[in-house]
Amino acid sequence: MIWYGCDYNPEQWDAATVEQDVRLMAEAGVNLVTLAVFAWAELEPRPEQFELAWLDDLIGRLDDAGIAVDLATGTASTPTWLGDLDDDLGSVDRWGRRRAGGARGHHCPSSPAYQLAALRLTAALAERYANDPRVVMWHSGNEYGGPEACYCERCGAGFIVWLKRRYDDLDALNAAWGTAFWSLRLGRWEHVEPPRATSDLHNPAQALDWNRFRSDLLLEQFTAERDLIKAVNPDARVMTNFMGLFPELDYWSWAREEDLVTDDTYPDPNDPRGAQDNALHLDLMRSLGEGKPFLVLEQAVGAVQWRDLNTPKRPGQFRLWSLQAVARGAQGVCQFQWRASVRGAETFHSAMVGHAGPTGPRWDEVVRLGAELETLDLTNDERVHADVAILLDWNSSWARRAAHTPDDAAPDAELRRWHAAFFELGIPTDFVSVDSDLSGYRVLVLPSHFLVSRATAERIERFVDQGGHVVGTYLTGVVDDTQGVHAGGYPGPLGELFGVRVLEHWPLPTATASPVPGVARISGAVRAPFPGPVESHWGTLGYARFAELVEARGGDALATFVDGDLAGAPAVVARRHGAGRATYLAVSLEEESLLAVAGALAADAGVRPTVLDLPAGVEAVRRGDRLFLLNHGDEIRVVGLGTLSAADPEVTEVRVGPRDVRVVGLVPH
Amino acid sequence: MIWYGCDYNPEQWDAATVEQDVRLMAEAGVNLVTLAVFAWAELEPRPEQFELAWLDDLIGRLDDAGIAVDLATGTASTPTWLGDLDDDLGSVDRWGRRRAGGARGHHCPSSPAYQLAALRLTAALAERYANDPRVVMWHSGNEYGGPEACYCERCGAGFIVWLKRRYDDLDALNAAWGTAFWSLRLGRWEHVEPPRATSDLHNPAQALDWNRFRSDLLLEQFTAERDLIKAVNPDARVMTNFMGLFPELDYWSWAREEDLVTDDTYPDPNDPRGAQDNALHLDLMRSLGEGKPFLVLEQAVGAVQWRDLNTPKRPGQFRLWSLQAVARGAQGVCQFQWRASVRGAETFHSAMVGHAGPTGPRWDEVVRLGAELETLDLTNDERVHADVAILLDWNSSWARRAAHTPDDAAPDAELRRWHAAFFELGIPTDFVSVDSDLSGYRVLVLPSHFLVSRATAERIERFVDQGGHVVGTYLTGVVDDTQGVHAGGYPGPLGELFGVRVLEHWPLPTATASPVPGVARISGAVRAPFPGPVESHWGTLGYARFAELVEARGGDALATFVDGDLAGAPAVVARRHGAGRATYLAVSLEEESLLAVAGALAADAGVRPTVLDLPAGVEAVRRGDRLFLLNHGDEIRVVGLGTLSAADPEVTEVRVGPRDVRVVGLVPH
Amino acid sequence: MIWYGCDYNPEQWDAATVEQDVRLMAEAGVNLVTLAVFAWAELEPRPEQFELAWLDDLIGRLDDAGIAVDLATGTASTPTWLGDLDDDLGSVDRWGRRRAGGARGHHCPSSPAYQLAALRLTAALAERYANDPRVVMWHSGNEYGGPEACYCERCGAGFIVWLKRRYDDLDALNAAWGTAFWSLRLGRWEHVEPPRATSDLHNPAQALDWNRFRSDLLLEQFTAERDLIKAVNPDARVMTNFMGLFPELDYWSWAREEDLVTDDTYPDPNDPRGAQDNALHLDLMRSLGEGKPFLVLEQAVGAVQWRDLNTPKRPGQFRLWSLQAVARGAQGVCQFQWRASVRGAETFHSAMVGHAGPTGPRWDEVVRLGAELETLDLTNDERVHADVAILLDWNSSWARRAAHTPDDAAPDAELRRWHAAFFELGIPTDFVSVDSDLSGYRVLVLPSHFLVSRATAERIERFVDQGGHVVGTYLTGVVDDTQGVHAGGYPGPLGELFGVRVLEHWPLPTATASPVPGVARISGAVRAPFPGPVESHWGTLGYARFAELVEARGGDALATFVDGDLAGAPAVVARRHGAGRATYLAVSLEEESLLAVAGALAADAGVRPTVLDLPAGVEAVRRGDRLFLLNHGDEIRVVGLGTLSAADPEVTEVRVGPRDVRVVGLVPH
Repeated sequence: MIWYGCDYNPEQWDAATVEQDVRLMAEAGVNLVTLAVFAWAELEPRPEQFELAWLDDLIGRLDDAGIAVDLATGTASTPTWLGDLDDDLGSVDRWGRRRAGGARGHHCPSSPAYQLAALRLTAALAERYANDPRVVMWHSGNEYGGPEACYCERCGAGFIVWLKRRYDDLDALNAAWGTAFWSLRLGRWEHVEPPRATSDLHNPAQALDWNRFRSDLLLEQFTAERDLIKAVNPDARVMTNFMGLFPELDYWSWAREEDLVTDDTYPDPNDPRGAQDNALHLDLMRSLGEGKPFLVLEQAVGAVQWRDLNTPKRPGQFRLWSLQAVARGAQGVCQFQWRASVRGAETFHSAMVGHAGPTGPRWDEVVRLGAELETLDLTNDERVHADVAILLDWNSSWARRAAHTPDDAAPDAELRRWHAAFFELGIPTDFVSVDSDLSGYRVLVLPSHFLVSRATAERIERFVDQGGHVVGTYLTGVVDDTQGVHAGGYPGPLGELFGVRVLEHWPLPTATASPVPGVARISGAVRAPFPGPVESHWGTLGYARFAELVEARGGDALATFVDGDLAGAPAVVARRHGAGRATYLAVSLEEESLLAVAGALAADAGVRPTVLDLPAGVEAVRRGDRLFLLNHGDEIRVVGLGTLSAADPEVTEVRVGPRDVRVVGLVPH
Repeated sequence: MIWYGCDYNPEQWDAATVEQDVRLMAEAGVNLVTLAVFAWAELEPRPEQFELAWLDDLIGRLDDAGIAVDLATGTASTPTWLGDLDDDLGSVDRWGRRRAGGARGHHCPSSPAYQLAALRLTAALAERYANDPRVVMWHSGNEYGGPEACYCERCGAGFIVWLKRRYDDLDALNAAWGTAFWSLRLGRWEHVEPPRATSDLHNPAQALDWNRFRSDLLLEQFTAERDLIKAVNPDARVMTNFMGLFPELDYWSWAREEDLVTDDTYPDPNDPRGAQDNALHLDLMRSLGEGKPFLVLEQAVGAVQWRDLNTPKRPGQFRLWSLQAVARGAQGVCQFQWRASVRGAETFHSAMVGHAGPTGPRWDEVVRLGAELETLDLTNDERVHADVAILLDWNSSWARRAAHTPDDAAPDAELRRWHAAFFELGIPTDFVSVDSDLSGYRVLVLPSHFLVSRATAERIERFVDQGGHVVGTYLTGVVDDTQGVHAGGYPGPLGELFGVRVLEHWPLPTATASPVPGVARISGAVRAPFPGPVESHWGTLGYARFAELVEARGGDALATFVDGDLAGAPAVVARRHGAGRATYLAVSLEEESLLAVAGALAADAGVRPTVLDLPAGVEAVRRGDRLFLLNHGDEIRVVGLGTLSAADPEVTEVRVGPRDVRVVGLVPH
Repeated sequence: MIWYGCDYNPEQWDAATVEQDVRLMAEAGVNLVTLAVFAWAELEPRPEQFELAWLDDLIGRLDDAGIAVDLATGTASTPTWLGDLDDDLGSVDRWGRRRAGGARGHHCPSSPAYQLAALRLTAALAERYANDPRVVMWHSGNEYGGPEACYCERCGAGFIVWLKRRYDDLDALNAAWGTAFWSLRLGRWEHVEPPRATSDLHNPAQALDWNRFRSDLLLEQFTAERDLIKAVNPDARVMTNFMGLFPELDYWSWAREEDLVTDDTYPDPNDPRGAQDNALHLDLMRSLGEGKPFLVLEQAVGAVQWRDLNTPKRPGQFRLWSLQAVARGAQGVCQFQWRASVRGAETFHSAMVGHAGPTGPRWDEVVRLGAELETLDLTNDERVHADVAILLDWNSSWARRAAHTPDDAAPDAELRRWHAAFFELGIPTDFVSVDSDLSGYRVLVLPSHFLVSRATAERIERFVDQGGHVVGTYLTGVVDDTQGVHAGGYPGPLGELFGVRVLEHWPLPTATASPVPGVARISGAVRAPFPGPVESHWGTLGYARFAELVEARGGDALATFVDGDLAGAPAVVARRHGAGRATYLAVSLEEESLLAVAGALAADAGVRPTVLDLPAGVEAVRRGDRLFLLNHGDEIRVVGLGTLSAADPEVTEVRVGPRDVRVVGLVPH
C-alpha cells in the first residue's frame, strides 16, 4: 500500500467546506491526512483548556471516508497566550535582539513555559489518541530547526550544561577550543557564550560545538514528545519531517530516534537540476532509514510561495517527481496542503485544491496520480539497492562551515556534485554515516570530507582492506573531531591509505584572465595563480574552484599538473591495497571530467548503471523487481532494457513520453 | 500666473548673503519662496520661546521684491531640546532599535511631546501669519512618511486603537487577519503588535492594516496642523508636499484633506525614462487634485546628492522638464533649494545658485526659465483632458507588497509599464481611485490591480455597462479588502465581467535557457517551465515575467498560447457588454507588444494620440488651447500638427531643437 | 643587517614543538621574532598575577639561537577575566548593540577597566624587559583601529571632551557642524552624540570629527603604553603595526609618535595589481618614516584566510614581494606567523612552517630567502629617492567619505590610480602630508584632494613659486578643515593657483548606452548625460567616472570637451608661475591616457623613470647604489640598464627569470 495524502488545516474552513473536502479527498484517492500541525490555539484555546471535540469529529469523518491520520503534536507554532506566561518567549538573534510574535516558530526552544506547555499538550493528545487505530502515525513539531536559532541567556546556559557533559572540565574545553590563541582562555564556565556577534572572526570550535548543542537541544524536545506518546502506546509510530540536507540538524542522530523517516521536498521547477535535487532528498531519506521505506510528507502540487520567483511545476511534473519518490523508496507522497489558504503567510503555496476549486489540469493530475498509486501496490520489501555510498556527516559540514577555510564554498557543494554525477550516470547511490555498515558497498566516496576522526579513518581502512574502493577529494581529512587540524599534512589519518600528503590548498578564482590592460606595463604582464592543465590516463581533466598541492607518498599519480604553478605535482593519486583501492583527487573536477572519472572508478569496482545506454533525459531506477523509467525531457524516448529482462518477455524496449513514467516488471534477481 | 520659486533656508546664511539673495531672486523671476521647512530650532530656540522677528523681516524683504511666501509649519525636523522632554523621542525600527538623533525626521510620530510641541509651534505661526496676505499658502511638515517607520510601543498602542475602531471586536480582527493559520489567534487586544521582525514570514493582513494605520497616523498630524491654521483663517490654503507614487501613504485620502496638491519630483537624468517618470508624477498630481492645477514644490536644477551616482541634468533639461510640468497641469515649479548649502547633509544637492555663485550656464537657464514662465500666462482654467484612466489604489499596492506573492516584482511595476506605454504613444492618461467618477473616460486600465473589493467591481461593471472599455492584466482581483483571496478563482468579483477564470499564476524566470551542460545526460535534457508563444489577431505577442493559466468563461480568446506548457489556453480574453468591453491580459507584455495592444485597445475605444505621427523623442501635450511640443532627443525635429489647427493658420509645422520646447496656440476646441 | 622573522605564539604549542621551532628558525635564517601579541591571558592569567617565566625562558632560547625579540605589550586581545571587571567591556555598534566576547579586539577602548589593566600589564613587561638588550623593539597593541568602532556612552562622553578641547564653546561647534540646517542646533554639550544610526543622512562634519576623535583616542592608548616603556628606558624603540592606507587612523600623526614605522601588507595574489598594492604600502611606510628604513612586520608566506577566496602566492612570489619591500626601503620582512595554527580563527592563514611541517617548495623558498637576506647586507643609509610626491591626508579622505558626495567612489580611488601610473612608468613616488617639507620634490600630485585648507593652499603655492609642478584632479579643494564648502567655486583657495573655477560636478555612469528599445518612441531617443570627447595636445584623452564643468580663469586650456554636454569647456587647465606650473584635470583619466599624461607632466618637470624602456612585467627600483630588477611576469626578460652604469662595467644588461629578482651594484651617484 502506498500513502497518498496531505496536510489539512481545517481551522481555516467552515463546516460545509470541511464536509466537501473529505468527499473530494476520497475522490482524489487520498488515504492519509496530517492533522493539527499548527492547531495548538484550536486544541488549547486557553491554558490547560483542551478542546478536542472538533478533532474527534474530523478523525471520524476521515475514517468514514477510508482515510487514516498522521497526528501532529501541534507544538511548532505557539498560541499567543503562551507569551503571557513568558516575557522572554521569543527567540533572540546573534545580536541579542528578541524576535517579535506574529509568525510560527517564534519561541525560544529553552523556554520553560514552552517546554512545559508543549509536553502538556502532547500528553493530552497522546492520552486521547495514542491507542486510536485511526491514527497510524505521529508527527512531532514541524521542520525542527527551521526557524532561526536562538542565542538567548537560557540557551547560553543550556550550552554550558551541554559542554560540561561533553568535556567534563574546563581545561579540556579550553584545549579543544584552542583558546590559547587570541587570549580567549575561559577562566570560568560562565565565560562561555553562544557564538554571538562579536568583534572579529569567531572561534571555529565554539561554532562547531554550538551546532552540535543546538541539534541535541531540539532532539530532546522531539524525544520528550515521543516518549509521552510511547508511554501510552509503545507501538505508536513517531517521527518528524526532515528537509533533505538541511544544514542545522544531524539527521543521522535524529533518524535513530524515529520510527519512520519522512521528508519535505521542494525542488525548484526553474532549476534543470530539480529532479536531481529531488533524487538527493529521496536517496538521503532512504539511507537515513537504513533502506526502509520512508514517506514524502510534504511537497507542492504546483508552486511554493517562499522563493523570489515561484514558478509552478510543469504539466506532468508533479506526477513525475512523485513517482520518482516511489521509485527511490518512498512508501507514499503527501502534499502541503490539501486546500490553498485564502489568508495567512502561505496563501500562494499551491495545494491539491487550488483557489479556483477542484478543477483544471492540476486537479486532474492530482486525481490521476491518486488512482495510479492505488494500483501500484508496492510492498515495503521492494527495495532499492546501491553499490556506491557517499559519506555524509553533519559534523564535517559544520566544521567546514565554522572554519575560516580557504574558500567560502558551501560545505556540501562537492557532495552534491558527486551525487549528481552518479544520478546522471544512472548508478544508484546511498548515503552513509561514519557509523554505517559499509560491507554491502563496492565504492565509498568522501566528497571533500573535511572532518575525519581517527576512528572513521580506521573504518575506511577496513573497508578498503576488504576490497572496497574509496574515492576522496580535496579538503578531506583536514580536521579532527574537535576542529583541530591534523598536523603533519592532510588528509591526516587517511594519508597512509591514499598514499598522499597535502601541502597546500589552492582555491581558484572563477576566471583567471587579467583585468588589467596591457598599457599597464608591469601589472598588465602579471598572471593570477593557476595550477596548470591536468593530464591523466583518462585524458585531459577539466577542473575548477579548487586544487591542492600534494605529494604522492606511497600512491601512484594517475593525473599530473603538466604546466603552471603546480607543474609536476600529482592531481590524482591512487594506492592499491589488495583488491581494494584508495583514490585521492586533489582537484574539483568539472562536470564532463567528473562524469568520466566517476564512471571509470565505479566500473573499476565492478559497478555499472542500472540500465546501459539510456537516452537523454531518462532516469531508470530499480526498486525490487520493478523498473521505473522516468523521462524528464521534452522528447518521446524509446528505452532499451539493456542487460535487464522484463517479466513479460515480449517487452524489450519501452516508449516513454515527455515527463511521463513507465513501470516495467522485471525477472526477479 | 505661474509660480516660480524655491525653498529658502536663511538660517544658513549671513545678513549680506540674504540681502543679495532677495535681489538675485527678483533677477531670476522668482515669485514664491518656501520658508521655515527646517527652521524649528530658529523659530523656537528654547521650549515656548518663539523668535519670529527674523521671519517677519524676511517676509517683508521678499514682499518688497514682489515675492510671495509658502510658509512651512517647521515640524518635520525637531530641535534637540525636544529630546530633553521625551527620552523615547527617536523612532524605533522593526528590530526594536531606537534611532539616534543628528538628522531630520528623528521623532516617533506618536511621541506626545512631539505632538504637543508641533501643534504649539503651528499655532504660534498661524496666529502671526494666517491672515497675512503675503503668505499665500501653508506647508505642513515635509515629505510625510519619508523617514523610516516607527515600531515602538506607543505606535503599537496606537495601532491597537486604530484596529479597535476598524474591527470593533477581536473576533472580527482574527477573522480578517486569518489568525486561524499558524495558531496566531489573538486572545486579547494586547496581543496585537506592529509587524516587527519575527521568526518567519509575516502575516500579510497585519502588514496591510499597519500600512493603513501608518498613513492615517501621519494624516492626523497633518489635519491637526491644518485645522489650527484654518481656525485663524478658514481661507488659508494648506498642503504638504507629495512624492509621486511614494508607497507609504494613501495620497488619495491625503489629497482630500488638502487645499492644493504639490509634489517633489526628482527624475534621474541618467535614466532615459526620466521624462516618463516625471510625466507620471505630473499626471498623478493632476489626478489627485481632480484636474485642478497643482504645484511642483521641489525639483533639482541640476543634480541631487542622495543617489549612488548623481549626474546633473543635461543642458536645457531643467527647463524642458519644468515646461513638461506646466504642460501637464502644473501652475508653477519650485526648486529645492535657492542657494546650495555649504554645510550639512544636502551640501551637494544642486540649487538655483550653486557653490560658484550666480554664474555659468546653469544660472543662465534659471534666469531664462523665470522670464519665460512670466510671459507664459496660463490660467487655472486651462486644463489637460484625458480619455484614458489608470486605476491606482494604495491599498492594492500594500496588499501586493504584504502578500507573499508568486514573484517579488514591485507592486506598481505593471502600472508604470502602462503609463509608459500611453506616454510613448502620446495618449494622455489620468489616474483614478476606486472612488473616482469614471464617467468622463473611455478606457480604464487595471494594471495587475491585486486588491479588488466587490464594491469596486460593481463600479467597474457600471462603467462598462455605460460603454466603457476596461483592460485588466494578470494578478488583478486576487484579494479582497482584508487581503482574503477571492475563492473560486481570480479575478474574483470581476470574473464575470471579463468572462475569465484564472487557475494558476506563472511567474517566469528572465531566461529559460538551461545552464546545465549537455554532458549531464538527464538534467541537460530538462527544460524550465515555459508557457509557450502567444498568437493573436495582433500577431505574435512578446511577453515576459508573468503569465497565468486561465479559462475563458463567457469571454472570447483574442490570443492563445500555441505551444509550451500552457498550449491551448487563452492569453487574452475579451467580453463585450453592449458598447462596452472588458479585456483581460493573462501575460505581462513586452514593450513592443504592449505599445501595439495598448494603442489598438485605445483606438477601439475611439481614443487617439494628441498628435499623430510624431517624430522620435518628441512629446506633445495639450493644455487648454495650447500645444506644448517637447523634444527630449538630441536631433532637431520638424513636427506636423496633424488633425490640430494652430491659432495662426500659417503654422502647420513646428521646428523643435534638441531638449527644446515650443508652445503653439491652437484653435479652441 | 636585514631583519627576517615572524610572529610566534608559543602558547599554542607544546615544549617539544617550541624547541624544534627555535632550531628551525635558525635554519631558516630568522633573526627577529615578535612575541606576546596575543598572550595577555598567559602573561596575566588572573588579575595582577603575572607569569613571565615562560617568556624569560623563550627569550633566552631565542637569544641562544641568535634571534632578537620584538616584544608586544599584549594589549590587543583581552583575557576573559577582564569582562568580570567591566560589564560593559564589549564595544557597541552604530545601533547600540554590544558585541559579545569570543574574539580579539572585543573591548571598548574607553573602558576604564581595560585602560587600567592594559597599562598595568605594559608596566610589568617594561619593568622586566625595557632594559633587556635582547628585546630590540617594542610592539604596542596590534593593528590599532582594526576592530569595528565603538559608539557606546563612554566613547560618546569622550567625544564631547575632545570636542570641547577643539572648539572651546558650543557656538563654535554649531557653526562648524552647520547645525543650522535641518534644525540640528545643539543646545547643550550633552546633545552631542557619536554618529550612531539615525533616521536620515548623517551630518558630515560630525562624522569627520568623529573620525579624528577616534584616531586620537586610540593614539592616546599607544602613547600611554609607549611612555611607560620609555619611563624605564628612554632609548627603547616603540611602534605598532600599520596597515597601509588603512582608512580609520591618521598615520601621519601616529608616525610622529613612533620610533619606527612597521606595516602589515597582504596583497592579493589573485589581483594582477598585487605588486602595485604592495609597492603602495611600501612607499607609504617609507614616507611615513620620512625616508628612514621601516619594517614589514606582517606578510603571508602563502595564503591568508580572511578573504572570500584565499589563493596562495605563486611560486617565487613570496621572495619577489619580500625583495620588493627591501628595494623600496624596508630594513626587514617578517611573517605572520611562524607555524600555522591548528586551532582558532587563523588556522588556515599560511605560515613559514605549514600544517605539513618544514617541507615542500614553500619551506624551500622560506629558507632560501633567509639566506639571501643575510648576504644582502644593506645599510640604513642606503635610501630610495623620489622626485614625485603624492599628497595624502586622512582628514581629506574622511571628509570625502563623510560628505554625501556626487558619487560613492572610494575616497582614495584617484590616489591609487596615480600611484599605479607612476609605478607602471617606473618613476618612484613618495607620499607627503600637508605638513611635509616639499622642497626636495619636482612634482606634487593632489589626486582629488577633497579637503584643502587655506594654510595647505599657501604651502602648495610656495612650492610652485619655487619652481615645483603641481597636478590636481577633479574634486580637489572642495571643502575646508571643518567640512565647509569653499564658497565661490572649487578648488577654493587653489583656484587662483590653477587658474580655474569649477562650476559643477559630473559623476558619470559606467555605460551611457540607452537601455530603452527604439520602439519607445520618446524614451528610446533620450540620451544620458555625456560631457563629450576630450581633445588635447596629447591627443584624444580617454576618461571615465567623473568630469567637471570648469572655467579657465587665468589658466590655459590644455584639453577641451569638443562635443557633448560640456562642449567647449576645458578639461585640463594649466597655469605657469615662473618655472613652476599648476595643472588641473577636470576628468578622471582612463589608464592609457593617465599613463601618457602623468609621464608627460613628469617629463616636463624633468622627471624620468629610473630605467628607460623596461620590458613588460619588470619593475626597477634604485635603493642607494643598488638596482633591484623584479620581474613580475611569466617570461624571461633581458633588461638594459639605460642611463645607469653598473659597478661592474661588463654588466650592461641583466637577464631576469619569471618572478625572479636580480640586484645590480651601480656606480655611485
